[in-house]
Amino acid sequence: MDAEEFRRRGREMIDYVASYLENVRTRQPYPDVQPGYLRQLIPDCAPESPDSWDDLFKDIERVIMPGVTHWHNPHFHAYYLTASSFPAILADILSDGIGCLGFTWATSPACTELEVVTLDWLGKMLDLPPDFLSCSGGKGGGVIQGTASEATLVALLSARTKFLHKMKKDNNEIEDGVIMSNFVAYTSDQAHSSVERAGLIAAVKMRKLETDDKCALRGHTLQQAIDSDKANGLVPIFVCATLGTTPSCAFDNLLEIGPICEKEGIWLHIDAAYAGSAFICPEFRPLLNGVEYATSFNFNPHKWLQVNFDCSTMWVKDSTLISEAFRVDPLYLKHENQGQVMPDYRHWNIPFGRRFRSLKLWFVLRLFGLKGLQECIRKDVRLAHEFKNLVLSDERFALFCEVTLGLVCFRLKRSDEVNERLLKAINEDRRIHIVPSQTKDTYFLRFAICASQTTSEDIQFAWKVISEMADFVLKE
Amino acid sequence: MDAEEFRRRGREMIDYVASYLENVRTRQPYPDVQPGYLRQLIPDCAPESPDSWDDLFKDIERVIMPGVTHWHNPHFHAYYLTASSFPAILADILSDGIGCLGFTWATSPACTELEVVTLDWLGKMLDLPPDFLSCSGGKGGGVIQGTASEATLVALLSARTKFLHKMKKDNNEIEDGVIMSNFVAYTSDQAHSSVERAGLIAAVKMRKLETDDKCALRGHTLQQAIDSDKANGLVPIFVCATLGTTPSCAFDNLLEIGPICEKEGIWLHIDAAYAGSAFICPEFRPLLNGVEYATSFNFNPHKWLQVNFDCSTMWVKDSTLISEAFRVDPLYLKHENQGQVMPDYRHWNIPFGRRFRSLKLWFVLRLFGLKGLQECIRKDVRLAHEFKNLVLSDERFALFCEVTLGLVCFRLKRSDEVNERLLKAINEDRRIHIVPSQTKDTYFLRFAICASQTTSEDIQFAWKVISEMADFVLKE
Repeated sequence: MDAEEFRRRGREMIDYVASYLENVRTRQPYPDVQPGYLRQLIPDCAPESPDSWDDLFKDIERVIMPGVTHWHNPHFHAYYLTASSFPAILADILSDGIGCLGFTWATSPACTELEVVTLDWLGKMLDLPPDFLSCSGGKGGGVIQGTASEATLVALLSARTKFLHKMKKDNNEIEDGVIMSNFVAYTSDQAHSSVERAGLIAAVKMRKLETDDKCALRGHTLQQAIDSDKANGLVPIFVCATLGTTPSCAFDNLLEIGPICEKEGIWLHIDAAYAGSAFICPEFRPLLNGVEYATSFNFNPHKWLQVNFDCSTMWVKDSTLISEAFRVDPLYLKHENQGQVMPDYRHWNIPFGRRFRSLKLWFVLRLFGLKGLQECIRKDVRLAHEFKNLVLSDERFALFCEVTLGLVCFRLKRSDEVNERLLKAINEDRRIHIVPSQTKDTYFLRFAICASQTTSEDIQFAWKVISEMADFVLKE
Repeated sequence: MDAEEFRRRGREMIDYVASYLENVRTRQPYPDVQPGYLRQLIPDCAPESPDSWDDLFKDIERVIMPGVTHWHNPHFHAYYLTASSFPAILADILSDGIGCLGFTWATSPACTELEVVTLDWLGKMLDLPPDFLSCSGGKGGGVIQGTASEATLVALLSARTKFLHKMKKDNNEIEDGVIMSNFVAYTSDQAHSSVERAGLIAAVKMRKLETDDKCALRGHTLQQAIDSDKANGLVPIFVCATLGTTPSCAFDNLLEIGPICEKEGIWLHIDAAYAGSAFICPEFRPLLNGVEYATSFNFNPHKWLQVNFDCSTMWVKDSTLISEAFRVDPLYLKHENQGQVMPDYRHWNIPFGRRFRSLKLWFVLRLFGLKGLQECIRKDVRLAHEFKNLVLSDERFALFCEVTLGLVCFRLKRSDEVNERLLKAINEDRRIHIVPSQTKDTYFLRFAICASQTTSEDIQFAWKVISEMADFVLKE
């Protein structure tokens, strides 16, 4: 394919994507296919000679679309949302076109520097303490990770290194693994599965601490765990607090946890994967109070800030704690401007190669503006409250917890089993798609505002479906 | 931006990218900017209200391009290449448009299933042993990782888990960290920096073994290390062999290493990040002989197989070894078809969220066809040999090692210091861009065939520049 054909095919693809997103509400949110469907639709080998564009293009509808879960259909209400916006898609085309890698500053200075500066922009939008920002002139700064899971892992691994060095100062003879056996990290029993997994990967004990009746980790629980572990000879090194948990969008109590971490000298990482975007609105910013105690902070613009996956932004107050944690420096990566002013981001994350991802953040921040992005957040929260009111207006149902942002957790005032049947009926009906959760031994349904096209009518529609299915299940 | 404006802007962006790539040879491969250049060109905060598209679009040339290292300029010969092709860019637009996540099968069945099937296609193109393929009906299968660094880390972590479980069967009381202190992994002193880094992250000792005069790891070296470590009470768990090393494109001796790993029960991972793509050509396939001994195998289609970053393909013979290594299973991720026929890929990699990356592999395999991709590889190897002959025709220069694929390592027959001055002169001249390396205490220059537009004339041009700079440096 030459540039001329690319111009033609590019227009076809742009038109296809524009039409797909314009009409995505006409597609069924969750597909009907069974596992293994796709293999039967295509050959079992790649072609020797090129296939035609037309054949390939037709296969998008024939092979791919029947198996797509349409996350941007306004009747998709599962998990949390994933962002999609036209400005971000345009930026990704540019990123692919430039096609540079950004593992050191020299491999494409613009790739590194736009990341540094847009992370400062975004940090200011969240009103992060200045010591998290590169422009403040200290050791602070931001980086784009692929996912919140990677941010958590990078933070935990860096904390592990920090404490290893500290312990080895006293006794250089002990094996790392032996020291690490005494390390302990904490998170809540509501934290995302990737936090527990980070503990397994880093080989650091991850204690899942009990939360209060609002599913929040409280200071006294953390303090008790620390005291008891220290009494048993363990070394607390890390706390991962969550703002906006996956099961129920709960918020750990940062103002209690933060001072404890500070007093104990423990690395405090904040995972605000979902909720973080909301903090650009002054009315939600208080939920972030206590961030000043954190060592590292992370959230996903690729969830709720209009930036297509992957763009998980992470800030640290002392970037040398992560950039020096696993530094390996071969000659073929050395360059004259190393370590001056701008970072070599390969030291900041697990992957070596890096795409030019800051372009999409830059495009979105500029083409939406702060006000435009705030309006997206506020609209979704309004819709969640509208749904909440529908739940409250039906005496068969109860909320599982308060609604703070764009997630409503609710259940029939019946057994878990009945609620499981309701979930199954809703998803088998196929008009809307949601997922369940379970917390404090209670099974409930999660209704998330996901697609940016979702309107008040869609909320009413979803409630109509749920209500009908409840009639059906309760009649059984 | 609505769909109608996206159609218009999308065409502008497609045209911009088409023209950029058509004319990329007119841009200087390495930029003139100094660290910190970008911050001075843009505001220090995101805008409150949206910027105009026209202002943003103008800023691509004003802000971004002056700081771009143009990897697709035919005079860029640094590192190894990174792929860029029009079919891959088109597929990425579709992937962004669909905007689904693929962490479980249910989050978008097509996303998981196309990955399973295209990895089978690609595995067959490489003539991988059938037990690496999903279609063979065993436990084998492939997965797209972001980078080879992640593939190495995933393999090492899985090996660590496998051996931990084995050791704990005998004694369940010992702490993981204490057991891990006795684990040892091996790679060559030529392996990529990310292999050493994987050892640091996994907290497993990574021994860098000496290579022979061709920079290859040999069987007897490995066997000696294993014997000596076992005698000292250590437990060898993992070998990372490299096919096509970063410093000099050397090949570890798989046919010697493989049987040793098999005999000792050690996990053999093959990192063929760069060279792997060449194995689709029958004449280069013998370089992969011995892969039948491997537990896992990885290479980067995003380097030399026309698939834009990121697409690092990894196969394992027993996928449960990686998918079960760090499994955490919360309710909100359960789905009815779990564990049937198709994998939940979130268990196969470090990140949780995943993009629809198999689309670009599918587009490339279909629109190039096997023959088209083979021709790209062969053209680059021909150009490398053309450059090699130019080096050999100039008696001031010597090759550092044999040329096997698209990399030529060479040096002036003078001191390292003179060669360092030559490298500096070449890069400061700015007409071409290369990077150096150092191996066996010898400093040399690396000349890689990178851009797909590179022609014989470009090779002659590059040699003219190098020759001129040699004149200049030798005259000093």
